[in-house]
Amino acid sequence: MRQLNVELGERSYPIYIGEGLLDEVSSYFVKHGISQKSPLMIITDEKVAPFYLEHLTERLSAGGFKVVSAIVASGEQSKSLANLELLVTKALEGGLDRKSAIVALGGGVVGDLAGFVAASYMRGVKFVQIPTTILAHDSSVGGKVAVNHPLAKNIIGAFHQPEFVLYDLKTLQSLPDREVKAGLSEVVKHGLIWDKEFVDWCIANAGAMVSKQPEALGYALYKGCGVKAQVVSEDEKESSLRAILNLGHTIGHALEAVAGYNELLHGEAISIGMIGSAKLGVRYGASEDLLRVTALALESCGLPTRIPAHYDTDAILAAMMHDKKFSEGTVVFVVPVEIGKVEIKPDVPIQWVREIIEELKQED
Amino acid sequence: MRQLNVELGERSYPIYIGEGLLDEVSSYFVKHGISQKSPLMIITDEKVAPFYLEHLTERLSAGGFKVVSAIVASGEQSKSLANLELLVTKALEGGLDRKSAIVALGGGVVGDLAGFVAASYMRGVKFVQIPTTILAHDSSVGGKVAVNHPLAKNIIGAFHQPEFVLYDLKTLQSLPDREVKAGLSEVVKHGLIWDKEFVDWCIANAGAMVSKQPEALGYALYKGCGVKAQVVSEDEKESSLRAILNLGHTIGHALEAVAGYNELLHGEAISIGMIGSAKLGVRYGASEDLLRVTALALESCGLPTRIPAHYDTDAILAAMMHDKKFSEGTVVFVVPVEIGKVEIKPDVPIQWVREIIEELKQED
Repeated sequence: MRQLNVELGERSYPIYIGEGLLDEVSSYFVKHGISQKSPLMIITDEKVAPFYLEHLTERLSAGGFKVVSAIVASGEQSKSLANLELLVTKALEGGLDRKSAIVALGGGVVGDLAGFVAASYMRGVKFVQIPTTILAHDSSVGGKVAVNHPLAKNIIGAFHQPEFVLYDLKTLQSLPDREVKAGLSEVVKHGLIWDKEFVDWCIANAGAMVSKQPEALGYALYKGCGVKAQVVSEDEKESSLRAILNLGHTIGHALEAVAGYNELLHGEAISIGMIGSAKLGVRYGASEDLLRVTALALESCGLPTRIPAHYDTDAILAAMMHDKKFSEGTVVFVVPVEIGKVEIKPDVPIQWVREIIEELKQED
Repeated sequence: MRQLNVELGERSYPIYIGEGLLDEVSSYFVKHGISQKSPLMIITDEKVAPFYLEHLTERLSAGGFKVVSAIVASGEQSKSLANLELLVTKALEGGLDRKSAIVALGGGVVGDLAGFVAASYMRGVKFVQIPTTILAHDSSVGGKVAVNHPLAKNIIGAFHQPEFVLYDLKTLQSLPDREVKAGLSEVVKHGLIWDKEFVDWCIANAGAMVSKQPEALGYALYKGCGVKAQVVSEDEKESSLRAILNLGHTIGHALEAVAGYNELLHGEAISIGMIGSAKLGVRYGASEDLLRVTALALESCGLPTRIPAHYDTDAILAAMMHDKKFSEGTVVFVVPVEIGKVEIKPDVPIQWVREIIEELKQED
């Protein structure tokens, strides 16, 4: 079992990563002072529930905890104010009080939604995260929780740190291959922004990760969470440094916006976005090696590195304009300088971005 | 101009109280680093808007601020998730970003609603309070913001401290007499829990306050906010001490619940509740003087001290049971020991409360 501490002063918390941790889940709840008198509520989605909800409920009940649970639809559309209201109804009906905890069992969507319920129910109750995807390693560090608004994603939310995060590597075994690969995209990103050695390790161990070998996945999550924890510790409320975590996201979000439903997973979109960023880095003077190694790391994990040719360049740029603040033909971008190091460039010419998007399409 | 500082570490903030402060409102915004580049949004209600919205907007615009405004219906029903969604729509359409501020112009309802918008929009933006009622002096200290859920009041919320509070005593001149008196109920409460001298001052100056003399109201708000600020500084997240602020609220909330719409204002209900609490204090051994002075202070301010005879005792008790946790025939109560000092009694017999409710009715 690996343990990583996210250092945030009085809001610090540990991330436990290991095989079979769910079997002994109650001991972690006891250790962290979660009340056995006040009911706790597990929030999960309809995809994850059949695999782990019964086991988790049984283990917590056996440990003396009172458990209420709620299952939402899977997918981004569940992050809504309507679901917040519904989950608060369930919490009230279940008798949750100020000493209760909300437990997120699932991926990033469930974490964001359950986290915002925890942040706002009775002005804030305890929150525990039990991620069941690789991608969720990213959202399990940093306390950013939110729901969506019809006009904007993640616009209604809070910073609400969990009491602890419990990563049972066994739960990753049920992940479809495509989601494993997409999840590795954020793992590789954490190497690219912060830790060259870890990028080398990812390239060497990509096969083991893609085939879900627990030891490799455990180490990858430990290192990925570790980079994010360092960044977040230095900038909890995203005033400056934390922006480097957006590597690949400017192009990536735009691709998600123009892609059809489920055509590109988030991790796939930012994989392509990170290639675009590396190309920008080379334009700013970085070695061609930067692009080569970035592509190697992502391709080793089975991730796409090209924009499908039928995507419209103008539509991608328009989506970027909508997402970010533009001023006079330039855009803010996270640009790699070398493997393991990035910079925020406040004034990247949109024309460069257009050219790079074209390149990414032509090489398809 | 009086200034009071609410001490909450890095979340500390000042309350400015004085006549005509709205005229120079821009200088306060500049002093507190509110951005002139990012639009700010004033949230107010349909009762307050006709009096002060245009003036406030004009003064801020003249000071170089970009202003968006939103008007909600007045009354408790405006504290809804539906209004949160609507106000976030307005904020997005108005171009509010992370450096924007949300400004509450109005009473407690507007403060709670606007505060929760500020707490959750983009995971938290700056918040400024411009209260226009006496009652709002209470909610302007402590950072408790929230909206209601169909099953429970204030159940979805946050602790979100303002950057500063600006109390322009001129805005109180438009308050109906009944609301002035009801607002004084919380002022007197702050004396009763903490400061005997201030209770004496309230009795001596009740006439001046009721007739809205600015000097008297300014001092009353300064002292009332001061008591609450001291309590909140010691217990920001309401783990223990802050509960003493609930003096009179256990019976008061129950009376509000059984009263018809607008039959009892909040301040009127807790005035009666505080008489009930004083009666409990006497049962626990306090001097009869406690009850006499409590009644004198409240009656001097023109507040009711009796329960209308037609209210059903069982209904009041049932509403109390719904509101609070009961165990085996007892209830938690804030009970005065002497004027200026209260205790939390965890096990007040419900039978005593029943008898006191009957007394409060018979003396009508």
